Amino acid sequence: VDLRLGHRVDHVDRLAKKVSGETSHGKHFSCDYRHLLFANGASPLVPHIPGIDYPGVKVLKNLFHGREIKEYLKTSGTGKALILGMGYIALEMAEALRARDIDVVLVKPRPKFLPWLHEQLASTVWQELEAQRVDLFPGYALKAIEKGGKGYKVICDQGEFEVDFILVAIGVEPNSQIAAQAGLELGPCQAISVDRTLRTSDPDIFAAGDCADTYHVVTGDKTWIPLALRANRAGWAVADNVTGADVSLPGIVGTAVFKVFDLEVAKTGLNSKEASEAGFEPQSVVIESRSRAHAHPGSQTIQIHMLGDQKTGKLLGVQMVGKEGVAHRINAPAVALHQQMTVEDFSQTDLAYAPPFSPVWDPLLTTANQLLKRM
Amino acid sequence: VDLRLGHRVDHVDRLAKKVSGETSHGKHFSCDYRHLLFANGASPLVPHIPGIDYPGVKVLKNLFHGREIKEYLKTSGTGKALILGMGYIALEMAEALRARDIDVVLVKPRPKFLPWLHEQLASTVWQELEAQRVDLFPGYALKAIEKGGKGYKVICDQGEFEVDFILVAIGVEPNSQIAAQAGLELGPCQAISVDRTLRTSDPDIFAAGDCADTYHVVTGDKTWIPLALRANRAGWAVADNVTGADVSLPGIVGTAVFKVFDLEVAKTGLNSKEASEAGFEPQSVVIESRSRAHAHPGSQTIQIHMLGDQKTGKLLGVQMVGKEGVAHRINAPAVALHQQMTVEDFSQTDLAYAPPFSPVWDPLLTTANQLLKRM
Repeated sequence: VDLRLGHRVDHVDRLAKKVSGETSHGKHFSCDYRHLLFANGASPLVPHIPGIDYPGVKVLKNLFHGREIKEYLKTSGTGKALILGMGYIALEMAEALRARDIDVVLVKPRPKFLPWLHEQLASTVWQELEAQRVDLFPGYALKAIEKGGKGYKVICDQGEFEVDFILVAIGVEPNSQIAAQAGLELGPCQAISVDRTLRTSDPDIFAAGDCADTYHVVTGDKTWIPLALRANRAGWAVADNVTGADVSLPGIVGTAVFKVFDLEVAKTGLNSKEASEAGFEPQSVVIESRSRAHAHPGSQTIQIHMLGDQKTGKLLGVQMVGKEGVAHRINAPAVALHQQMTVEDFSQTDLAYAPPFSPVWDPLLTTANQLLKRM
Repeated sequence: VDLRLGHRVDHVDRLAKKVSGETSHGKHFSCDYRHLLFANGASPLVPHIPGIDYPGVKVLKNLFHGREIKEYLKTSGTGKALILGMGYIALEMAEALRARDIDVVLVKPRPKFLPWLHEQLASTVWQELEAQRVDLFPGYALKAIEKGGKGYKVICDQGEFEVDFILVAIGVEPNSQIAAQAGLELGPCQAISVDRTLRTSDPDIFAAGDCADTYHVVTGDKTWIPLALRANRAGWAVADNVTGADVSLPGIVGTAVFKVFDLEVAKTGLNSKEASEAGFEPQSVVIESRSRAHAHPGSQTIQIHMLGDQKTGKLLGVQMVGKEGVAHRINAPAVALHQQMTVEDFSQTDLAYAPPFSPVWDPLLTTANQLLKRM
């Protein structure tokens, strides 16, 4: 293996099968390929506003960024932080900052908190954040960052915040510019379009990870969801296919989980909006169940939102929020989605019961039974 | 609904469609039926040995028994207990007794501890019990119980134990005697044989719960596994079918979970012996993985044993032991078994990842990948 660190590719010539670019010493280089793999990930989105380049404004995409933030918090003596964005990274960082006793304000331009999550479940997450003394300001558009006081003044359309540290966590975009310039097809969100064998529109060029798109098993359509398992799995599949195997990946079902303070939040499959857009006739239910048997001490509430398709009876998606028993519980419906199971068939599965872990009817089964009554 | 408490049925006349028996006042009664349901459960097995009727010898099958045991422990001032058996109930009661600071000895006649569990996983459970100062004596056959000292002397073929309390927890048998006398077919373990609609060999007679058998989805054969979800679900299905619906239950896949001190133990599907007996060619693997991402504090070891069929590639069963992340994780392969998924298809499922809950590759996926290399 010929590792070329400090070599920045900026051009791919598909006709000549050559990549070219610049070394870290400013020299031009070029090299031939038989197979080429784009595995150059995604980059954090950063709004183009005045003051975004101040040293107290950071992104968090890799270990280097993490270390940089830690160092900054220590040397600046940050007492109050503003996080721009309210996604996974924003919420996980809110917890990390509160653990250091830093006051945290979350701001986002659009008005809806966790728009992909059912509003009852989103409200539970909101309450948890408030209980942990995180202040949320959805619908606040960032206008500028100025030096002010001992730190920064963050100016939004609806108000100002004085803070010592600003984290930009409004999402990522795929690094697909070089691929696009080379004439490769792009898919959803401008990710590099690949088939199930991870080949791009040029069969000698592969793409894997956050720079590439994938298939959604539930809709059958292309999608772009930059998460770790999919990226890692795609890398292995490319290695197999380049070395002569014939690996074809089915795609993802949209499973995701995160922890925010004492809450576990998990989802798999589609929400109502996504399901309607994909041509399904979603019917859904939200129920509250318990994480353990009725009589078992320490039982917590679990909220579950489940969707099925009126036309085919198929399970379409599940969302869950609760203080325990949520993260791993989502994997059962994830497997069901891979198998295109109906809600009825899922409702008959033999899920585990013991008093410390579940009611006799697992919350997922109770939800499926309630959903069936509506379908 | 005509509730007749204190009425003991002891005879079913299928020709006349009548049940008859005795009231608690010793009077004969009889009544007609159009549909009849056996839902009379199972009874604890009790060995026929001298001294088994002493007041300090108890079984635990229902709430009444539980209260009786609590009362006995308090009034007798029990300091040391012997549990006959090493199944779920025995292990759960070992924990309950240790929590009251009672010394616990577990004894069973057969030599193998948790014979249905892979020996590496069984050894982890054994070590946990020893660490909690529970003494285990497999291969000790009970011969007699005598009054002795301030409590009882339990005499086994290989030694004696002086204890204050004895719990018999060697399993249960289905209450199928009346059904058998009425000429109904019996299935595995002498449970009442029922079809997927819960009808016995007489279509006007149903049976549900621990008294009845069921189908095993993985083998396609009848089986008898007395667990709560199956019993509860069967009761609902009978109610539906008697009132005109047409509900057919697929059966169970053999999912079970229990907690023993700090360990979670879970299984679904078949073990190697069961798989071979059912005509499969089982190939298997045991791996150790982690309950959380590498860098996340508090990560625990999870041991996983997974089996697949060499002939068809199908997943056959999974067993897991660990201090966290085991109980609910078993539900994903349980759903896969319901769908007759191959190990390869299961290895491609989109399971949830976040550092507090799993490595990027869920331990189940890592196990499936390792198993595939052997198949």
